[in-house]
Amino acid sequence: MAKGIGLKPLDDRVVVRSAEAEDTTAGGIVLPDNAKEKQQRGEIVAVGPGKLLDSGERAALSVTVGDEVLFGKYAGNEVKINGEELKIMRESDLLAKVEK
Amino acid sequence: MAKGIGLKPLDDRVVVRSAEAEDTTAGGIVLPDNAKEKQQRGEIVAVGPGKLLDSGERAALSVTVGDEVLFGKYAGNEVKINGEELKIMRESDLLAKVEK
Amino acid sequence: MAKGIGLKPLDDRVVVRSAEAEDTTAGGIVLPDNAKEKQQRGEIVAVGPGKLLDSGERAALSVTVGDEVLFGKYAGNEVKINGEELKIMRESDLLAKVEK
Amino acid sequence: MAKGIGLKPLDDRVVVRSAEAEDTTAGGIVLPDNAKEKQQRGEIVAVGPGKLLDSGERAALSVTVGDEVLFGKYAGNEVKINGEELKIMRESDLLAKVEK
Amino acid sequence: MAKGIGLKPLDDRVVVRSAEAEDTTAGGIVLPDNAKEKQQRGEIVAVGPGKLLDSGERAALSVTVGDEVLFGKYAGNEVKINGEELKIMRESDLLAKVEK
Amino acid sequence: MAKGIGLKPLDDRVVVRSAEAEDTTAGGIVLPDNAKEKQQRGEIVAVGPGKLLDSGERAALSVTVGDEVLFGKYAGNEVKINGEELKIMRESDLLAKVEK
Amino acid sequence: MAKGIGLKPLDDRVVVRSAEAEDTTAGGIVLPDNAKEKQQRGEIVAVGPGKLLDSGERAALSVTVGDEVLFGKYAGNEVKINGEELKIMRESDLLAKVEK
Repeated sequence: MAKGIGLKPLDDRVVVRSAEAEDTTAGGIVLPDNAKEKQQRGEIVAVGPGKLLDSGERAALSVTVGDEVLFGKYAGNEVKINGEELKIMRESDLLAKVEK
Repeated sequence: MAKGIGLKPLDDRVVVRSAEAEDTTAGGIVLPDNAKEKQQRGEIVAVGPGKLLDSGERAALSVTVGDEVLFGKYAGNEVKINGEELKIMRESDLLAKVEK
Repeated sequence: MAKGIGLKPLDDRVVVRSAEAEDTTAGGIVLPDNAKEKQQRGEIVAVGPGKLLDSGERAALSVTVGDEVLFGKYAGNEVKINGEELKIMRESDLLAKVEK
Repeated sequence: MAKGIGLKPLDDRVVVRSAEAEDTTAGGIVLPDNAKEKQQRGEIVAVGPGKLLDSGERAALSVTVGDEVLFGKYAGNEVKINGEELKIMRESDLLAKVEK
Repeated sequence: MAKGIGLKPLDDRVVVRSAEAEDTTAGGIVLPDNAKEKQQRGEIVAVGPGKLLDSGERAALSVTVGDEVLFGKYAGNEVKINGEELKIMRESDLLAKVEK
Repeated sequence: MAKGIGLKPLDDRVVVRSAEAEDTTAGGIVLPDNAKEKQQRGEIVAVGPGKLLDSGERAALSVTVGDEVLFGKYAGNEVKINGEELKIMRESDLLAKVEK
Repeated sequence: MAKGIGLKPLDDRVVVRSAEAEDTTAGGIVLPDNAKEKQQRGEIVAVGPGKLLDSGERAALSVTVGDEVLFGKYAGNEVKINGEELKIMRESDLLAKVEK
């Protein structure tokens, strides 16, 4: 999981490659070339093991690598890995999955 | 569910098409053409699976696709999908259903 | 419930018609015509199903349609329905019932 | 309870008639005529049913109608009933009872 | 308890007579006449019944009337009783007991 | 415990003598004479009984008198006892123990 | 554990040596010499015993000494030990592990 990106998020965090930075569109729905629209859309490139519950188990994430997602404008921490800007955010910062 | 809009909200989130953007009125009650009144009214176009409970089950939402709802002025994240402005908010940001 | 107003509040919310907007006084106690006094007084015109408890049941509200109530100056969301200004607030924003 | 004032507070709230507004002193201890001192002192004129506990029962209040109490300078909501200024606050905003 | 001061604090609150106002030093340790040092030191003159626990019991306070205590600079509500300035604060605002 | 300092902290609080005020270095590691470095380092001179748990027991502190500790720049309340400046802070404000 | 650095973090805290301060790169992935990229990357040099749970046990940390991690720009307390700048932060401030 997340082999390509070289990051293993902690807890319920995910790594998102924002749509602004993409060369090719991952999802199948028609998307106008609109910068504003792309700011809050991206692809999941790595997922954490899930939030630790009181029971000692971890809650499974409801997104997986490859999912296209929407998130809030100010969601996440920006990090730069191998020259590429990525966002790391908690699953709770994700608003919706874009259905392909 | 939410097939038309191409979005699957996460957790207890819903996607709302605000009344400002509507061509035809979905509800049956008489509504003056009042921009201010429309800002906080909309139609549910997609719903999430519900909030994850400690028990591992999800709490069913009390609104469904097609419901007309009221929400606070600053509720929700604005997203643009296929050129259309939509709001994604948590069920707890919804104030009331408009009865048809 | 709340048939006249056409709104069904969610959770523990209530819809209040503020005393400022009333033509006739609903309660029986003598009220001077005092705008300031009226700002925080109103009549319950619709009630929600109550707060969802961890047990899955809903906590019954302690106010009903027709109750006259006091609330804080900044309580609630203002909404306009059929040209009428109403307030939607949580039961916890209500301070007291006015006894008739 | 609270028949004279015509208000029934909700939850763990109490209605307080502040000492500033009193003609006669309710408590028996000697009080200089000091406006500042009176701002945070008052008499309980109505009490709510108590806070709803998880068990479904209500926690009994530790003050009753007639008690003289101290409260913080900014505690409570000011309401005007029949021309009289009163404060409605939660029991947790009360600091101490004045022993008579 | 707290007979002299005429106040009965609620919950886990205590009434503190600040060292600034004292004529004689209650504790036995040597104290330079230092106004700054006295601002955060005082004597407990009344204690509440303790915090109400979920079990319905009250947690015993760990200070009693007569204890000399330290507290934060901005801790507590100032009240004036019979012309004397006192502070009412929660036990959690107390930092330490001064050992005599 | 804490006999020398004459203070008994409450709950999970500790009294820290900051390194800035020390004449001799308590720990064994080499420390440059660096004022900035000393601001967040100190020695525990008194400890409280530990945080009260829901069970009624107290959680043992993980530091004891004599430990050298690091803490945040703005952690703790400054108090002056017998002319000496000390800091009283909660155990949770301590960052690390300096190993001797 | 953490013998070299001479610090034992408390609870779920870790000590991080930020990449800015490193002479040699610990991880195996190719890293451009980019100051901005290094600000949020570092190596774990000491770990605490883990967060104390209600059960009295401690939750094991999911990082260990030697792990390379990413963290938020403003995460952690800066401390200076033996002239070296280090960061102490909670495990929850760590965003991801960098896979070697």
